[in-house]
Amino acid sequence: MLKDELDIVIPTIRNLDFLEMWRPFFEQYHLIIVQDGDPSKVINIPVGFDYELYNRNDINRILGPKASCISFKDSACRCFGYMVSKKKYIYTIDDDCFVAKDPTGKEINALEQHIKNLLSPSTPHFFNTLYDPYRDGADFVRGYPFSMREGAITAVSHGLWLNIPDYDAPTQLVKPLEKNSRKFDLPLRLPILYVDAVMTIPKGTLFPMCGMNLAFDRELIGPAMYFGLMGDGQPIGRYDDMWAGWCVKVICDHMGWGVKTGLPYIWHSKASNPFVNLKKEYNGIFWQEEAIPFFQSVTLPKECTSVQQCYLELAKLVREKLGKVDPYFITLATGMVTWIEAWEELNSAEGTEAEAPNGKNE
Amino acid sequence: MLKDELDIVIPTIRNLDFLEMWRPFFEQYHLIIVQDGDPSKVINIPVGFDYELYNRNDINRILGPKASCISFKDSACRCFGYMVSKKKYIYTIDDDCFVAKDPTGKEINALEQHIKNLLSPSTPHFFNTLYDPYRDGADFVRGYPFSMREGAITAVSHGLWLNIPDYDAPTQLVKPLEKNSRKFDLPLRLPILYVDAVMTIPKGTLFPMCGMNLAFDRELIGPAMYFGLMGDGQPIGRYDDMWAGWCVKVICDHMGWGVKTGLPYIWHSKASNPFVNLKKEYNGIFWQEEAIPFFQSVTLPKECTSVQQCYLELAKLVREKLGKVDPYFITLATGMVTWIEAWEELNSAEGTEAEAPNGKNE
Repeated sequence: MLKDELDIVIPTIRNLDFLEMWRPFFEQYHLIIVQDGDPSKVINIPVGFDYELYNRNDINRILGPKASCISFKDSACRCFGYMVSKKKYIYTIDDDCFVAKDPTGKEINALEQHIKNLLSPSTPHFFNTLYDPYRDGADFVRGYPFSMREGAITAVSHGLWLNIPDYDAPTQLVKPLEKNSRKFDLPLRLPILYVDAVMTIPKGTLFPMCGMNLAFDRELIGPAMYFGLMGDGQPIGRYDDMWAGWCVKVICDHMGWGVKTGLPYIWHSKASNPFVNLKKEYNGIFWQEEAIPFFQSVTLPKECTSVQQCYLELAKLVREKLGKVDPYFITLATGMVTWIEAWEELNSAEGTEAEAPNGKNE
Repeated sequence: MLKDELDIVIPTIRNLDFLEMWRPFFEQYHLIIVQDGDPSKVINIPVGFDYELYNRNDINRILGPKASCISFKDSACRCFGYMVSKKKYIYTIDDDCFVAKDPTGKEINALEQHIKNLLSPSTPHFFNTLYDPYRDGADFVRGYPFSMREGAITAVSHGLWLNIPDYDAPTQLVKPLEKNSRKFDLPLRLPILYVDAVMTIPKGTLFPMCGMNLAFDRELIGPAMYFGLMGDGQPIGRYDDMWAGWCVKVICDHMGWGVKTGLPYIWHSKASNPFVNLKKEYNGIFWQEEAIPFFQSVTLPKECTSVQQCYLELAKLVREKLGKVDPYFITLATGMVTWIEAWEELNSAEGTEAEAPNGKNE
């Protein structure tokens, strides 16, 4: 894929080894780095990378009062990068995710696999038991209706993780291997299997979307990839990607687009502290018991023919239905509307170019 | 699993090597062999196997006029074995399926994996991105609602195939490797991937169920495992397992039970002749374009609280809706009702023991 078709969005880079390790795979692309904390902190990006860097001051300057929809002191701020990108595709990755190896020992070019996933169709309307039928050497099995073999456009490619799985805090706490490690930030080699498959998540089925290793078609689904309000001043964290996943899946189902999960793997190097995580998550753990049935039962009216319309309709329903669960959802619904306004402002045909960020190196 | 909990059902055995290869895995279980063609043909089962063998004369004698619901000269007759079994679980396998090896070269005990699949819960109501969370070393990922982690009872375990995939005749015909092989009944080494995963097919999603390597909880879903009317005197073949799969999935979704697919693999040794297959399949290829939307839109009334009730309701809907597509579906709907009557007769508490088949060796 060409540089002018895909941007890589990274929320802060605390560890520059991260970029060095990905250099052979990332150097040819443009990076959008969204610094999640103190704007006075300087991040020195190694020579050779083409990047732009936004801190909180940039976000405030570019969005003005609408900057309220972008989280502060939380990696959820990465979605600002989706908004300022002008490319068709986005790949987003966390800075504790390194290059993984496949079972033969070969380094996995995660980006290449995501691009394959996005450029080939999905199968959301009927299950293929031999997984992705568009993969080399694969096909549709007997009994797969021929009228459905064209598949659907793929909007999202959700990659997985070797080494440290994406567990919630309670699971981190009760897993014996983690208990035994004492120091929680040491790499823990849990027996996560390498599963050589890509599959479409069927229509009507929600999934827990993780933002660690995620690619999507920004032109299609970008306006729904809002990572919500987390971190500073908010009663919840670590649900940014989950929130986006529920919204995105409901809208993809409505629009007839596919969401894939599976390959590529990245190497997730570091388990975050489960005690800190529990503090961030506990409201989410409680609220998701209401939010998931809400999203499972949502039907978008057929008048909603654009992602923006779908998203504003969702925001209205979130305010109405989940607002009763906690006032946080009313704030979030407002953030959802502001997000769409800001997206439109930066992305409408008439919109002026976003102001240059302070760290732009082009 | 104990012998008194599971029966192995095999439709005819044309190749006795089949039994020799499976001997270490099958010898401890009881086999039910249902001979699909000429009843005068004698099948010599090797010493050491505990089996009962039914041919058409036995089926006619045991079921009387209700034998009309059992296919003749087609492996669909295997479902007679599900009906006469008295065990909780059934494993059914084709006689051209051999023991496969995993990537480490170890022989796969398919039955053991099916039993694991059936004895652990399913996750039909929310997708777990790390596949079966109940597998050793696996778990639920972040964002999986805690209230759903108990899972659902598993009713079906659908295993896959190495070597020759389960393709329809048109796909067999157009695959270059098959074209190049000239002699169609030679083993063809297609690049089928070994995917080390078991997953639940989400609620609301249909799948193409293959009967080559299939296990199920007969006490739960047995009455819906009817393989339809195929073969002699019928305008269709090779849709027996597909038909059962559509019915079973709709009923499992209604009852809240899970259907798993993935491991274990068997080694499918022989591609059947695509020209013969095309002749059997062509009506099915056409009809499935109507049948699948029908099954996708079926909602069973909540008054249906047993599989038998669900199945009779389905039969009624098949007659009403699919009867318009072709009169075959009216015959099939009648077969479905007869099947349930025969099932009840053989399986009701008051029912007398089925008469001994001619080949019983106990």
